[in-house]
Amino acid sequence: MGKEIDLKNCIIAQSGGPTVAINASLAGVLLANAENKYFDTIYGSINGITGIFNSKLLNLTKLQETVPDFIEKLKVTPAMYLGSCRYKLPAAGTDEETYTKIFDFFKEYDIDTFFYIGGNDSMDTVMKLSDYASKIESDVKIIGIPKTIDNDLCGTDHTPGFGSAAKYIAASVAEIARDTYIYPVKSVTIVEIMGRDAGWLTAASALSRNEFSKAPHLIYLPERAFDSDKFIEDVKRLLETNNSVVVAVSEGIRDKDGNYISASSSSADNFGHNQLSGAGKALEYMVADRIGVKVRSVEVNILQRCASHLASLTDLDESVSQGKKAHSLSIENKSGVMVTLKRTSDAPYTVETSYMDIHDSANNVRNVPDSWINAEGNDVTDEMLTYLKPLIIGEPKVTYKDGLPHYLNVDHLLP
Amino acid sequence: MGKEIDLKNCIIAQSGGPTVAINASLAGVLLANAENKYFDTIYGSINGITGIFNSKLLNLTKLQETVPDFIEKLKVTPAMYLGSCRYKLPAAGTDEETYTKIFDFFKEYDIDTFFYIGGNDSMDTVMKLSDYASKIESDVKIIGIPKTIDNDLCGTDHTPGFGSAAKYIAASVAEIARDTYIYPVKSVTIVEIMGRDAGWLTAASALSRNEFSKAPHLIYLPERAFDSDKFIEDVKRLLETNNSVVVAVSEGIRDKDGNYISASSSSADNFGHNQLSGAGKALEYMVADRIGVKVRSVEVNILQRCASHLASLTDLDESVSQGKKAHSLSIENKSGVMVTLKRTSDAPYTVETSYMDIHDSANNVRNVPDSWINAEGNDVTDEMLTYLKPLIIGEPKVTYKDGLPHYLNVDHLLP
Repeated sequence: MGKEIDLKNCIIAQSGGPTVAINASLAGVLLANAENKYFDTIYGSINGITGIFNSKLLNLTKLQETVPDFIEKLKVTPAMYLGSCRYKLPAAGTDEETYTKIFDFFKEYDIDTFFYIGGNDSMDTVMKLSDYASKIESDVKIIGIPKTIDNDLCGTDHTPGFGSAAKYIAASVAEIARDTYIYPVKSVTIVEIMGRDAGWLTAASALSRNEFSKAPHLIYLPERAFDSDKFIEDVKRLLETNNSVVVAVSEGIRDKDGNYISASSSSADNFGHNQLSGAGKALEYMVADRIGVKVRSVEVNILQRCASHLASLTDLDESVSQGKKAHSLSIENKSGVMVTLKRTSDAPYTVETSYMDIHDSANNVRNVPDSWINAEGNDVTDEMLTYLKPLIIGEPKVTYKDGLPHYLNVDHLLP
Repeated sequence: MGKEIDLKNCIIAQSGGPTVAINASLAGVLLANAENKYFDTIYGSINGITGIFNSKLLNLTKLQETVPDFIEKLKVTPAMYLGSCRYKLPAAGTDEETYTKIFDFFKEYDIDTFFYIGGNDSMDTVMKLSDYASKIESDVKIIGIPKTIDNDLCGTDHTPGFGSAAKYIAASVAEIARDTYIYPVKSVTIVEIMGRDAGWLTAASALSRNEFSKAPHLIYLPERAFDSDKFIEDVKRLLETNNSVVVAVSEGIRDKDGNYISASSSSADNFGHNQLSGAGKALEYMVADRIGVKVRSVEVNILQRCASHLASLTDLDESVSQGKKAHSLSIENKSGVMVTLKRTSDAPYTVETSYMDIHDSANNVRNVPDSWINAEGNDVTDEMLTYLKPLIIGEPKVTYKDGLPHYLNVDHLLP
């Protein structure tokens, strides 16, 4: 029995580092298709594009139809439901075989469109695959859906996952500040936040300020050279009028010569390591040495990208919209594009989905504009706050079971 | 105009490290008094007992009557609303003046009862003050209300604050596990959890296991000597059948000679420090050196004691009950006592409030029973899970404003 010739399927994969919203984009594609059945079957590729190489697939259409509340739960489930990979597609000229394998797979599974949800590396893959499709005159459409907590993709107002991470950072810095305010002693608390090259997420700590708390009192982004002497002066000045000084610092701050600020050990430790601690630890030691007050550093670590219990509803809703937009771009026969968000107004906050040529976004990093950092380089401006505020609004309904957030199980990712 | 002679007031203070539930106990005392007006005025002492020395007080009765939703907001506000102190009362024989000052204050403010909400040090203060009251035949009653995320107070089933911290740990370890499952590569993730001497909170990580995830695959408590060779064997064995191995470890683990397991630098770093990193880092280095897989350590840090957005409703409700019980103990003319919780059934879970002589609790540490740790010393038993499960149940209603949890302001704690 031969294959039916009029089947039209698609495949979706997720890649890069986890975010809280990356499954909401996946849910968006599924929701759109449930409305118009443009695709017969939506496949999920397990572990990014590598699932295509070894045919590790999920039938998402079937899951959507059979698992109770699948879409609702998918929308709030953190980290990639389909798993991820760290895989950079080789240039087409250098490794034809890989491309042949992918497009053979597309043919075998009647794939009409490949959707890739991810950050810069994934958009690079979208670009290479769509270029290759043009070259071999394949009709398969390749469409990118952005995500990254770093918010550093070009051509879009902000990226899915960023709003939720920003909300987690703002809420956590506010709670950390409360923790520091209880003792009437001079203290400095350094909070180290993710973002190696772009300071968006560290900037979001400014949202934690409220009617009584000015924490974080200082904010240092990687976009400005970090000056240790100026930092110590800033802290000393603030300690004159505050008991507790809270500092938000990006993991990626560098001095004027471009060297990362880190607390490196001058010789190996007793395990034989040349220890390299991060920016937070480095600033902690500077304060201990040069000011001598009580000081602590907190590395927020991976919870900032996987804490769905504190997601932004705005972020999740917009991620769903971008998944839906990707689906409609396929119907409109677009390929080699990335879904984008255009902000149409700050107050009231309104956005609309759009798209751009993938060549204009891939492999470029969007930094915080210099004019959104204050002159002293130790805070962000009101423009930044106006930009950030709407992105953390709203709380999704998270279901709790036995006292814990209950998300979709991912046993298909486990060996 | 002279003072009325029939005024009956009380004063409450909070001390030690923050918890999410310590203000719920304060709310309990206020709620009980709103019902029967036993006290004319309830004062709050700012920064623990030190507020008594320098007359830094809040009129809590007035706040309760004038601030909209004061009690409701107080119940979910993290960290001490009244601030804290790290102050150990000197022995009465060595420093009569301090005691005189305190009891003079009690007389001046018509104090009938002093309630102290705190951990071991605060209960030591309750003991010393009640002993002194007996000695000088003062009628002032001294009553302790426990709190500590460490759950290490003797004579009570569990302490206010522990259930919420346990919930935060369980939810966070589950989210960290999801973060590790997305890559199909061998990896080890070490999560370092608070608890220098008692392993209760680290044990709570076991609650994060569910129908598909066995994380944390290994749990090490300070109650058992830590054997590095055995640890490496455990991890190697698990890596044979799992891609991701998640390890929960108490910050206080020690080897068989009682030395803390830490990654200390053999010489000073370039800031002149002899770096001492915690147990998590130490285990990370062991895995890197002796197994050589991808490894990361996460120090959960202070968020485990101040993240009210993930509080346990059971914990908050029980804390309110214990505040109310303290109030009723005062009416019953008890002094030198600490409120306790007695568990009357595991399934269905039921508890009742009670009290104990402060001499039987103060300055003793309650460790995890040896029989609740498995024979291999790398996990907890079902008895532990039965004990822990009810403590994290339920979610309080947290109000959000501008996308962030909205709690009572604490501008009275700021200079």
